[in-house]
Amino acid sequence: MVDDVFFDLLHHEMVNVFTGVPCNEASAEMNVSKLEQIGFMTGYRLSEKATKDCQRFKDELDVMKFICKEFWSSLFKKQIDNLRTNHQGVYVLLDNKFRFLTQITTSKQYMEILPKYLAFTCGLIRGALSNLGVVSVVTGEVVQSPSCRFQVQVQRS
Amino acid sequence: MVDDVFFDLLHHEMVNVFTGVPCNEASAEMNVSKLEQIGFMTGYRLSEKATKDCQRFKDELDVMKFICKEFWSSLFKKQIDNLRTNHQGVYVLLDNKFRFLTQITTSKQYMEILPKYLAFTCGLIRGALSNLGVVSVVTGEVVQSPSCRFQVQVQRS
Repeated sequence: MVDDVFFDLLHHEMVNVFTGVPCNEASAEMNVSKLEQIGFMTGYRLSEKATKDCQRFKDELDVMKFICKEFWSSLFKKQIDNLRTNHQGVYVLLDNKFRFLTQITTSKQYMEILPKYLAFTCGLIRGALSNLGVVSVVTGEVVQSPSCRFQVQVQRS
Repeated sequence: MVDDVFFDLLHHEMVNVFTGVPCNEASAEMNVSKLEQIGFMTGYRLSEKATKDCQRFKDELDVMKFICKEFWSSLFKKQIDNLRTNHQGVYVLLDNKFRFLTQITTSKQYMEILPKYLAFTCGLIRGALSNLGVVSVVTGEVVQSPSCRFQVQVQRS
């Protein structure tokens, strides 16, 4: 229990420290990008450890299913609720009850800050995918808190 | 298992991002202080949650024992190995196998960066104590990695 609480609190404070009272717009953007960067490296190394005894993945969709199931469960104790793809390199992952949003009030004044709570996780996804050979751009969007959507756009070489 | 690995990796990346390639000495210091600040707020809120069903602590030493046992165990899966005090507001907590240091090589070139791996935890201790009514200054020192010592200097009003 404490583990989960700790993880939630730590994430919350990271967001606060990185995104609270920036000097100007440029530094606000840099701070969110740092948060994404921490997520990226954490996701990269985590997926390396998590897959070291796995069989090779068949294809990109197989990698994506791993992210939605095993990877997500190990972090958030639940799977992604819905995975969609256009079969052209765009994947949409829907989490109906995203843990980092469940603790945050949905009152209007907080709506603006909610996207900041997705930056670290966008990085986590991008990093995990990168380690598994899928280079991508990941963006997050709050649908109706605590429901949110992560869009993965695979960058083909 | 993944929980622990995740926590370790996340901490490692936070340290990297905060303390890597600062523009100048002032910003290096600010970055370490941000890391301490994240620790402080996380520790503050965590001890609030962890003690909500506890009996009141008898005195300062009782609070300190809670930090060394329950608080430390919940985070690092082990207790502090040794607690000393001069009974005048200075407490020294010794961890013979501090988890954030066990993964780091002890080769000479890394010796300089090891203290950065204590900043977050100094903040955790200071925050947890603060929530329990003990205002303090906390410093950390690597004795011989992975062994390290945290010194708590209570600030009496």
